[in-house]
Order: sequence, then C-alpha cells, then structure tokens
Amino acid sequence: MMTDLPTILDFASLKALYHAGTKPAEVMNTIADRMEGCDPAAFIHKVSRAELIAEAEALITRAPDPSSLPLWGLPFAVKDNIDVAGMPTTAACPDFAYLAETDATVVARLRAAGAIVIGKTNLDQFATGLNGTRSPYGAPRCVFDAAYVSGGSSSGSAVAVAAGLAAFALGTDTAGSGRVPAAFNNIVGIKPSPGRVSTSGVVPACRTIDVVTVFAASVADGIAARQVAEGFDPADAYARRFAETPLPSSLTIGVPSAEEREFYGNEAYRALYETAIERAASLGARIVEFDYRPFREAASLLYEGPWVAERLAAIESFHAETPDSIDPAVRTIIEGAQGMSAVDAFRGAYRLEALRREAEAEWAKVDALMLPTSPDIQSVEAMRADPLALNARFGRFTNFANFFGCAAIAVPAGFMEAGLPFGVQLVAPCDTDEALAAFASAMHEKVGTGSGLDRAFAPPSLPAPSPADGVEPSRIEIAVVGAHLSGMALNHELTTRGATFVEEARTAPHYRLFALATTPPKPGLLADPAASGEGIALEIWSMSPTAFASFVAAIPAPLGIGKITLSDGRSISGFICEYEATRNAEDITHFGGWRAYRHSRTVAA
Amino acid sequence: MMTDLPTILDFASLKALYHAGTKPAEVMNTIADRMEGCDPAAFIHKVSRAELIAEAEALITRAPDPSSLPLWGLPFAVKDNIDVAGMPTTAACPDFAYLAETDATVVARLRAAGAIVIGKTNLDQFATGLNGTRSPYGAPRCVFDAAYVSGGSSSGSAVAVAAGLAAFALGTDTAGSGRVPAAFNNIVGIKPSPGRVSTSGVVPACRTIDVVTVFAASVADGIAARQVAEGFDPADAYARRFAETPLPSSLTIGVPSAEEREFYGNEAYRALYETAIERAASLGARIVEFDYRPFREAASLLYEGPWVAERLAAIESFHAETPDSIDPAVRTIIEGAQGMSAVDAFRGAYRLEALRREAEAEWAKVDALMLPTSPDIQSVEAMRADPLALNARFGRFTNFANFFGCAAIAVPAGFMEAGLPFGVQLVAPCDTDEALAAFASAMHEKVGTGSGLDRAFAPPSLPAPSPADGVEPSRIEIAVVGAHLSGMALNHELTTRGATFVEEARTAPHYRLFALATTPPKPGLLADPAASGEGIALEIWSMSPTAFASFVAAIPAPLGIGKITLSDGRSISGFICEYEATRNAEDITHFGGWRAYRHSRTVAA
Repeated sequence: MMTDLPTILDFASLKALYHAGTKPAEVMNTIADRMEGCDPAAFIHKVSRAELIAEAEALITRAPDPSSLPLWGLPFAVKDNIDVAGMPTTAACPDFAYLAETDATVVARLRAAGAIVIGKTNLDQFATGLNGTRSPYGAPRCVFDAAYVSGGSSSGSAVAVAAGLAAFALGTDTAGSGRVPAAFNNIVGIKPSPGRVSTSGVVPACRTIDVVTVFAASVADGIAARQVAEGFDPADAYARRFAETPLPSSLTIGVPSAEEREFYGNEAYRALYETAIERAASLGARIVEFDYRPFREAASLLYEGPWVAERLAAIESFHAETPDSIDPAVRTIIEGAQGMSAVDAFRGAYRLEALRREAEAEWAKVDALMLPTSPDIQSVEAMRADPLALNARFGRFTNFANFFGCAAIAVPAGFMEAGLPFGVQLVAPCDTDEALAAFASAMHEKVGTGSGLDRAFAPPSLPAPSPADGVEPSRIEIAVVGAHLSGMALNHELTTRGATFVEEARTAPHYRLFALATTPPKPGLLADPAASGEGIALEIWSMSPTAFASFVAAIPAPLGIGKITLSDGRSISGFICEYEATRNAEDITHFGGWRAYRHSRTVAA
Repeated sequence: MMTDLPTILDFASLKALYHAGTKPAEVMNTIADRMEGCDPAAFIHKVSRAELIAEAEALITRAPDPSSLPLWGLPFAVKDNIDVAGMPTTAACPDFAYLAETDATVVARLRAAGAIVIGKTNLDQFATGLNGTRSPYGAPRCVFDAAYVSGGSSSGSAVAVAAGLAAFALGTDTAGSGRVPAAFNNIVGIKPSPGRVSTSGVVPACRTIDVVTVFAASVADGIAARQVAEGFDPADAYARRFAETPLPSSLTIGVPSAEEREFYGNEAYRALYETAIERAASLGARIVEFDYRPFREAASLLYEGPWVAERLAAIESFHAETPDSIDPAVRTIIEGAQGMSAVDAFRGAYRLEALRREAEAEWAKVDALMLPTSPDIQSVEAMRADPLALNARFGRFTNFANFFGCAAIAVPAGFMEAGLPFGVQLVAPCDTDEALAAFASAMHEKVGTGSGLDRAFAPPSLPAPSPADGVEPSRIEIAVVGAHLSGMALNHELTTRGATFVEEARTAPHYRLFALATTPPKPGLLADPAASGEGIALEIWSMSPTAFASFVAAIPAPLGIGKITLSDGRSISGFICEYEATRNAEDITHFGGWRAYRHSRTVAA
C-alpha cells in the first residue's frame, strides 16, 4: 500500500493519481514515509501513519468520488498557532500549549472540502519573527541549504510544501510570515486581504491585522485552497463580507525608485530583482517607479509603533506568570509594549492613517506593486547572533501590506549562484486577491525555476478572471456611437460620471446606423446581417459599475445598452436601438460613423 | 439700514428677503442687534457689526446675484473648536487659545458658498461634555428656560440657531454634541456619517470619530448646509470618499425594547418618546423593537474605555504644562486616560469590533433606529452638583453612533408640560445621510412645535431624494419579461444579486413578444406602434446600482436594457431586443406573456 509521489505535491498530479485509481490511504502512507525523513524541526506535531490512513479511509466513506470535493484527498500542514481539533496548539511555546477542542474555522472549511491534515508545523514563537529560528522546537532550514534560515514565522509550513510533504500548508501573516518563507523555499505564498479568511481559532499576533495564508506549489493551487478557506465568519470580529476588486487586464506595476531599493548588500538579490522587473515587462506589464517611503514608514510602525502591544495583549497573563517560558528575542519584542500608553496607541493609529493617505498618491500611479519578498537571506548562525536587526531586514517590503489592507502573492523569482532562492511579491489593494493571481502565476511560470525542491516543475497557467467567474468588474467598458462621443453633445454624461476614454474602434461589418429624430440628434445602431460595410466608428469608454448603473438607468427610449460586436470580434456593452425608431430614419451607414455624418451636416450648413 | 427678520432664520425666509431686494448688510445689522441682546454665554467671540457689514458688502462685490451661490448671505455661527481665519480658537479654554491663520476646510467651503460667519460659539471645554456647563465663558441656557442646560458640547451653536441669531451653525459631535443641544432647544441637528465633512482645522476630541455637524431650523436647511460642507479633503486623514447608501422609501424603524427604554425617571420624556413612535407609525414607518444592548455597551466604551486617551492625546503637552487651566470635570475625564496602556487601547478596539458584529444582527431587522436624543434634561444647578453622572445620562442613546459609523439626524419631538423640549434622533448606517433626511423632516413637520423659539414655524417638506437630485438611486427598478421572471430559468441572476420583487405589471399595448432561438429559451420584446393588444405581462424587480451594473454588463446579445412603457404610462428600465433576432422568431404576443407561452408548451409537451 505505497505509491510513488512527485517531488512536489501539486494539486493536478495528486488529482490525476486519484482519478487513475490511487487511494488516499496509499498517498498518506507515502507522506508518512516522507515525514519520517524530513527536517526534524519542520513539525511540532505529526499525525501518525495510522491516523493518516484512518482519515483517508474516512474520506472514502464520506465522499467516494474524488471529484465530489474540491480538495479531495489533498494533504495539508497547519501552522501550530492554528487549532486542529484533538491536537495541541503550542504557538511554538511548550508551556503555552493547549489541546484544541475544535478546528479553527479555516481548518474546518478545508477538511470539509476533502483535505487531510498531516501535522502541525513549527513557527517563530507566537508568530513573532520572519526568520524561523525563534522556536524551542528547532529552526527549520531552507530546503536548498541547511545552513540558511527557512524564513518565518510560518517556517515549517513552507518547508512542508517545498519538500513535498503537503500539497498546501496554512501559515499566518502579520508582518510577512506567509510570504518570506515562500521566497526562501522557492514556493508560492498567498496572502489574502485581511478579513477574507477567518482567524477564529488562531492564536493572535496582532489581532487587528492577522491573516491566515496558504503556501502551495503554484499560484493556481494556492488560489484554489484560498477559495475554499475564505468566507465570512461571524465568529471573527475582523472578518469582512468581501467583494472582489478586479484589476485591468493589462497591469501597471510599481517598483521602488532607486533610493528605496535596499538590499543590505545582497547584490545577487538586487540583480534577481532587476531581472524580475524585466520579466514583468516582458509579460506585458507597464513598469513605473513609485515612492516607497510612506509604505516603508508604515512598515516600520509594526515593530517600532504600538502594535507590539497587540502581541502582549494576546498573551498578557501568560507573560506575567511565566515570562521565562518565552523565547528571548520574542520576549524582548513583546516587552517593548510594557511602557506604551493608550495615548501612544492612538498616536500610532493617527500616524498610520496619515501614511495610508500619503500612500494613496502612489497607488494612483499603479495597479499593483512588485517588491522583493525579502531583500536578504541569512544563515541560521548569523541570525542567532543578531536576531532582531537581521530579522527586521526581512520585513522591509512586507510589513506594510496588512496595515494597508492589501492582497499579496509571493512567487519564486530565481536563484542566486550560491543556490539560494529569491522571490518577489505582487501586492495590490484590498480584495484584488483573484485579480492579482493571473499575473503572479505568469511570473512564476516564466521564471522557470520550478517549485520547492522540484526545479523542473512547470506551474499550471492561471487564466485572468472574467466576470463570468462571478468576479465583479472594476470598470465596465461601453461602446458609444453617437452623441456620447468625445466632443459631442452628451459626452458630459460620461465625463461627469468619471468615465475615461479607452480607445477608438469599429463595429463588425453587420451593422447599420440611422439618424434618429431625437433632440439632441442621436444615431441608432442596428444589427443587420445583410450589411457588410466597413463597420461603424465608435469609442470605448470605461466607468465604474455605479456610474454605469446610473448611466444606463438614465438612457431614454428608443436607445438601450446591449452587446456590440467589434471588428476584432470582441463583444462589449454598447448602445443598441429599438427597431421602430429606425424605420423612418435616414440610413447613414455609408458615412461610417456619427462624427463623419455630423461633420457633413455642418459643412453642408 | 435695518430689516425685520423672522424669529428663526430659516433659509427660505432669508432667500425670499434677498430676492425681494433686502441687502445682506441690512440682515447683518439686525443680527448684530440680536447678538447684543442674546444669552451672554452663547458666544466666545462675536464678529463686530462693522465686520459683519464689511463681509456682507464683500459678498455683493464677489457675487452680486443672490441665486449665484447656494448659501448666499446666510449668517452662520461656528463652534469655537473650529478655526476661522483671523479669529481666536479657544476650545473654551482661554489658556489654550490660538489665533487661527486659516479657515478650517469646512468653514472655507461654507464661506465660498456665500455664508457669512457671525461669531465663535461656546462649548463644553475641548468638546468634552453633553451639557453645556463646562466652560469658563459661562453656561449657555436652554432657550426655553434659563434654569436649564442648553445641552452640549455644541451649546452656543444650538442656542444661536434656536434664538434666531444664525441661519445655521456648526457643531462637532463625538459622543452626541451635535444632537443633544438640538433636542434641548427644539431645533434640528444633522450629524453626518464620520469622514464626510473634513475635520481639518478642528481641535480634536477623539480624532478617530470626531464629526462636524450642522444645526438648523429644519432638516431641509441643515441638509443644504451639509451638502456644501461635505466633500473629500486629502488634508484630513480620516476623510472618506463617500457614496450614498440609500434606504427603502418605506422605512422599517427600530425602537428599543421595553427594558432598554431608560429615561432616568423622566416620565414626561418617556411619554413624548412613545408619542413619537406613534407619529413615526402614522407616517408609514413599520415599527419594530430591537435589542439596544450592543449599542449601549459600545456607547459606554466612549468614556469608560480607552477613547478618553484620544482626548488626552489631543492636548497632552498643554495638560502637562498647565493642568489647572482645564475645567475640573473635563480634567477628571481626560486624566482617566493616564493609567491606560496601549494594551488597554487594543483591548478596547477588540471589544468595540465584537459589539459592532453583535449589532449587525439588530441592524438586519431595521433600516434605521429612532431613539430619544437625550433621555433626560437637567437644570444648570443640578448639573453643576453632579457633573459626571448626569452628563453620562445624556449620552446613553448617542454615544455609539460615531463608533458605528452612523449618520444621524436629531429633530424636535414635542414639549413637556413644563415647557422644555424633547427630541428624537433617526440613526442609520454609514452614508445614509441623504436617505434619512426625508423621514426625519416628516417627523419634524408632523410634530408641529415649530423650530427654536418660533413655535409656529412650519418646516419645509423635504421630498425623498431622487436620482435627478444628483443622488444615486438606492435601488434601480427593472422590468423583466422572460427567463428572469419568478421561478424561471434565469431568475437566480436577479436573486443572487440581491434583487427583490416589486410588483407584477404589463407593458403598454404597443409591444410584441417573440420566442427567440436562444438557450435557455428567452423572449424578445419589440415596440411596434401597430400592436394594440393587452400588453405583455412582466415583473418589476429592484436592485442596487452595483447589482444592476453587473446584471446589465452580463446580458448577451440580442438582448439589452432600454426603457419599457408600462400600461399605466410609467417608463422604466427593462429588456429590449435587437430587431434582427426577432425576424424569424415566433410571434407569441397573443399569449400575453412569457409565462403563459411557456405553460402552453409544457402542457403541449
């Protein structure tokens, strides 16, 4: 009862095995073998072989068909600050441990979808750290070089995915804990927008900004798991009823201007970042520089401002009773909160709000940011010698994201000659989680360094989301053919609604245009298969859904908004006309458009 | 150069005077007279007669036409924690005073619209209080009985409007300071949703939830001033780019269940509140009881939780240097923050977030709340004897509103036999500011107790907002004739978007219906003047603008959304069809509708 598994456990490979008849129990048996041989610091609690097989068989009983559940039979690891019923939750602090009675909401959702927990993974204690060495359970190592840190705080979860122990793993991310370990282990880290994935049953770090994350072999796999994991949870006071905020199909991507590209002397990382920028451009992104300063200053508030008091609030009585049970570096950070007043807390909130406002000017220039996930990597030895300052480097480009409500996806971005991986993160405003995925996936596909230990792994491509996927469009494009054209009588109905000009285009040949008897003069566009001219000239404008709604609602008969086929085959929303109004109207198709027709009238007059 | 002015300075009366030829300087001259005779505690700084006249003449020079500016020539008073250029800002603390160099953003907006500042009004020091006695400049009195408090903290501003000194006045409202004084002086208090009106140039009380408010003789006047006052201000980190959230035209109004109707023994107020509930019902509101507990507990956090640290943060160095300059009651409150830690601050934030979540269940039952503005009123003497406990009573039903991001409007609601006024407030979720106004105005019109000192004043009626007023409609109605009808194949495209059924109706006679060759089967509606049947059966559904936008954007050719004429002559958005698709389609007009046609097919099959 064994089976060969691929080096890295991507969803497609496992699903293919299951569809070919492999039993989950066989997969679990192999995973139990792999866990026996893995980095001994990766797990704090491993599910036994017998339990894994029992879970696999229970799944067969509950849902025999592998296609009946989205995560059917997929093994996953859970960071040990997230509750799994019947297992201890330690937060990497043995004296803090308690036996979880129920699954955290996110774990329950994933298990309900068919995924199987394989164990609880090591972390920087109380999720306080970005390096992976702050644990009495040992320091998980970078899967490519055991002298180097794995990154943290979700160290064991990243190693579990990179080493092929789990198809995905849950982390948490307050400062960057769901991204930095992805970078250091050549895998993908999905950091949802705060409030999308429930934190009920998670030991808090900073409750106001804690986020549960997903590590996976590819963006497609990570997004699939996130889609199951997320959803409003009334038990979590910080959960939100979110709605997707899409991004343009062609992204403008911000990269820090030269003075903000700090790599702490790691020139290999700098070069890899510059190559990643070229890669993004080659994928069609427009690259623009932005000022990282307000983001950096917000990032610095996370450990230098009052938010460390949240970490103390989370364990205050434990800290008061047994302070020596706490890792020295973690304790130093948390005790920094002891002198902070409520006035300090509000001053920090004011400062953050001011920086958020300053950052708006930068967001206005870009759709998303592409930043180094970490600007540096360090050996375990160096980290232990200077645990606070070196850790702070890792968070330089991650710490702001949850403060600003962002979605972020960390993807592999190449290797140093020394064999250590580098990663970049795509970061965009709240609830762009779906919209960001396609480009992040393209970056991963293009870099060609595989995933985790499998340097030959080819990540599956992830198509851009379409409105048909249930994602609301951020901007709706509309074709106008008459009085709404630039400079025409009703163009203000677009501009006062914040609509922006996109491009000029033409309809497909099968349209006719009529001059209607309306005031102001308007044309009517009619589809007619018998027509076969040059098409009708039009302009495409784009506006927000709210603007579109009020625009459509205000259109008087005989016009309306339907779908227009363009000369290039695209179908977009645009003006159609009721037939009756065209019956006695002048056919002006031969002018090729309303502007030419109106011009002829002016010249004639 | 004098003119007779009405007892209370409503906008319509002043505008009528101006249109009839009265000069602003004449009005200002009369106001200077009135200010000489007013409650000496109402103003901290009065603009001199000469300055008022100079401002009036400058307005004539700048904008000679009274109809050229929305607030042309309207005198207004400004609470003395809001900057007016060239005048001292004291916040009712003489030693704190500074000379303002520039207008607060809100003042600048109002002046640009033609309004004229008449002076700076008294307040509970640092806007800390709801009673009006906490000021070294004296206690403004209830305009109906000088033994009683005016309410606070915006005491002088409310008195200025109620006594006919100003057409409107600015207050601020953190706990209830823009509402309680309205109740105690028989006027209207408009409390915008937090973030709509800039607080730049306002001395903070609690920066995270401070709101600038408007007092006026009527809801219509107050809303008109608020519309000028509000607007995004990048200089205010807490300013928001808001969008209206409309309410149903027929409101479901929540009133506290019996155990939460605390009036502290003021049975006259209790009776007036019960009468107000009957009045609301008589105006068509559906009255339901809700549980005020989570609101009350949130309200208590404002002074019992860490938010007092915001008040200390606002004046920390001033307090440290000259603590004896601060009013004893205010100082006691603010010094309550001295022992509070940053951990306390975050714990308060967590508690508030949990209460907000609990309150969601109550909001789900209602569109708006109607609450006593204050459950009690007290004499100045009693208040001075017990300044903290009696003040706390006044905020029982107001303190939660800004924590929960609400819009609120306080309106007169009758008089005790003892001659003291009572008020109620309509409170609804964020950005219902416009939507709430019509019902609040109707409540004011109906109570029949005038406004301020003019008990015979008839407030102008305020129609429900319509799209034509520039306010986005809350719900857009759409006529569906085919697969979107209740129970039909595509009805889920409406229901999953939150659309609600409104009514069944028919088109006007001049329509024909065709069975198109689409999958799923759909009909096409075509206007045809030659048709003269019974019209086509349809259903009207209503949905949010966002839902409407995504619905329209997803409609495939040959259908679209235009305007349908109903049998009763109404024109509403609805499905139209491109002519081409109907040409070879079966004319099913004689079935009178899609449902009857489909039924005939089912029966036939």
